[in-house]
Order: sequence, then C-alpha cells, then structure tokens
Amino acid sequence: MSRASSPGLFVTFEGPEGAGKSTQIRLLAARLEREGIAHLLTREPGGTDIGGKLRELVLDTRSRVSPMTEFLIYSASRAQLVGEVMRPALERGEVLVCDRYVDSSYAYQGYGRGLNMAQLRAVSEAATGGLTPDLTVLLNIDPALGLTRAARVGEPDRIEREGLDFHWRLKQGFLELAFKEPQRFLVLDATASIEALSDDIWKAVSARMSVSRSRD
Amino acid sequence: MSRASSPGLFVTFEGPEGAGKSTQIRLLAARLEREGIAHLLTREPGGTDIGGKLRELVLDTRSRVSPMTEFLIYSASRAQLVGEVMRPALERGEVLVCDRYVDSSYAYQGYGRGLNMAQLRAVSEAATGGLTPDLTVLLNIDPALGLTRAARVGEPDRIEREGLDFHWRLKQGFLELAFKEPQRFLVLDATASIEALSDDIWKAVSARMSVSRSRD
Repeated sequence: MSRASSPGLFVTFEGPEGAGKSTQIRLLAARLEREGIAHLLTREPGGTDIGGKLRELVLDTRSRVSPMTEFLIYSASRAQLVGEVMRPALERGEVLVCDRYVDSSYAYQGYGRGLNMAQLRAVSEAATGGLTPDLTVLLNIDPALGLTRAARVGEPDRIEREGLDFHWRLKQGFLELAFKEPQRFLVLDATASIEALSDDIWKAVSARMSVSRSRD
Repeated sequence: MSRASSPGLFVTFEGPEGAGKSTQIRLLAARLEREGIAHLLTREPGGTDIGGKLRELVLDTRSRVSPMTEFLIYSASRAQLVGEVMRPALERGEVLVCDRYVDSSYAYQGYGRGLNMAQLRAVSEAATGGLTPDLTVLLNIDPALGLTRAARVGEPDRIEREGLDFHWRLKQGFLELAFKEPQRFLVLDATASIEALSDDIWKAVSARMSVSRSRD
C-alpha cells in the first residue's frame, strides 16, 4: 500500500517519558470523537497479541538484553502492529494516532544507545514496509523536568532509570530527526499549557486532514 | 570483530527438519571432544535467556504472527546469541558449531514465505554484525522423506505442518544459497550413511581448522 492511495491520516506522538504524550493523545481522541471522525489509537510496543508478550519481555528489568536485540524485538512488535492494525485502519480511511513509532527507535536506540542509524533505518523499512507518518508531534522537554514528571506517575521502568546523559542524547536525537523532516514534524514546547498544546495539535491535524481529503 | 582476527572456527549446520542435523552435530562434538579441541554448540532460536523466551513465543502455534514478525523475532534472538555467546567463543579460539543460522532465515522466510531477500540480508547484517560462518554443512534431503523422518522423532511443530509445496521451496532455497557460496558450503546427501556423512564433515572441519590455525 502506498500512502498516497490511502484516505486515512497517520499521526504519531513522540518525545521522552513525562512530556505529556498520553494527555495530548487523549485530548486529540476526544476532539476526533466530538467531530465524528473515525479514528484509532495504538501504542508501541504492544497493540497485538504477540506485541503484548514482546512488550512484557522488553520491559522486564531482569532480562539482560543488548541494544540491538531490544531494537529487533521492538521492530517485530511493530511489524505485527503495522500489518494487523495500522494499515487496515488507514485503508478504512481512519485517523490513526500512534503513541511512539520509528522515531522513538531512532532516538532511543540510535542517538541514545549508539546503534548504527543506517542499520536502524534498514530494519525499520523491513518491519513497516516503509509506512511513514503524515504528521509527527514531538513534545520537547528538558530531560530533568520530564523525568520528574514521569516519576510522579508511577514506578520508573528500565529506560527511565538510565542516566541523565542518555536522556540528553535522546532529546538531541528527537530534535535532529525533526530538523531533517520539517514538513512531517510539529515540534512543541511540552511546558506550554495543556490547552495551548492541544489547540496547536488540533490545528495541525485538521490542516492535514483537509489535504488528505482533497487528495482523494 | 573481523573474522580474520579470530583464531576460532565457525561451523553451521543447515537443512530441513529430518535431515539429520542433530545426529551429525552430536558426532562432530564427540570427535572434537576426543581430539581435545575446545568447542561450543549453540542452537537457534534460543541459547540465551531472552532467546529461550522468544523461541517459546514463535513456536507457540496459537499465536498468529506475520512472516516478517517471525523473522524479526528470530533475528532478535540471534543478535543476543551472537553478542553473548558466539563472538566470545570465537574470540577464545574455540570451534563454534551452530544448529541453524542466517541461511535458515533466508531459506524459510525468504524462499519459503517470499519475504524480500535484500531486506532479510540487511536485517541479518544488523543482527549479527556481519558474522559469517567459515563452513556451512547443508544436509540435503527430499522434503517428503525429511518430513517422514522428522515425524518419527516427535510432535510436528507449526513449521513442520506446512504444505509440501513450502518444503520444496525450502530445499530449492538452501541449494541456491549453497550454489552462490561454494567455498563456504559443503552440500551432502542426507540419505548417505551416518558414518559416511560424519567422515565427510570431519574432513571439511579439520581442513578448515588447519587453515584457521596457519592464519594466526
């Protein structure tokens, strides 16, 4: 499936833990609901039967897993999610909203853990068949602040417990990805008010929906 | 690690179920033991803590998993095995004997299930860091005969229950891989006697060990 042939709109949310992705995704879903627009939310890793099991494996702090193994497990989960859930939703013409997608892999495993970016891209191309978001909302936040916000929500998982150094590379990575694809990325300051962020996101989504609709 | 810098020897066994890989690996290990040569046996998928869990996931017949997802799970298991077990053994100068490696992925997922071979190679390169066997023993067998032999050993798993058509593509795939790399592959008729096969394999292994030793 080439994206041009699909009437759906593919929106991803990216950013570190504590940036407020879940809140903004919930608000976007509520707005789509009010507007009567068919939509679907997915979350990585997980979202399928096998994806849920792979998610448990990766998040299990007791397993010693190399960065490449971790990345390949995420990619396996993603391949199943794309084929089983995401492409069908886009083919039905829905607005597909994903909490994390390939950019998270590039930021966490590439910039964060130093894996070869060309290899990450080749694997992601195989896993997704080249399915690329129409819009990626990046919630940018100072790592120290994001970690404090995330810690308030619950127990830190393995990734949250990484050093601050790792989280700075992550932030830098997300910004570089956005810089390379300014058309696809909407970069927002995650410390702005929830309402202001939600308004900016809705403007970007609805603008892209008109383009998407007029394309058909 | 480049292979030229390592004193170890990397030997893989490939072929369909029922070709007699396990028997020949056991005999090779016994011979290496008698000769007092340090060696290590590994088996895919599995061989590490996370690999064992991934193996259970893939072999679980109840999970509906796409061919690409399956391949990425195998690759994740392989990445961990290469980093945690295989490279260290080769660096210690041991003879490393693997029951299946990347050629199985190319045969099963590429020739068998029709996945894009260039993508399979790119993912495998990322997973293994390019670690390639010095010798690959391919036990070639007529699919119908191999399946009969495998069925005698135990319950057929999901892959064994595929149609005969799939198994012919698999056999063809293995032979094409061998044809492209005649230096690396030793193709043997799996219907020959166990002793004759074992002798041929030992000759090939010991010849490569002398090359490997004289390389240092």
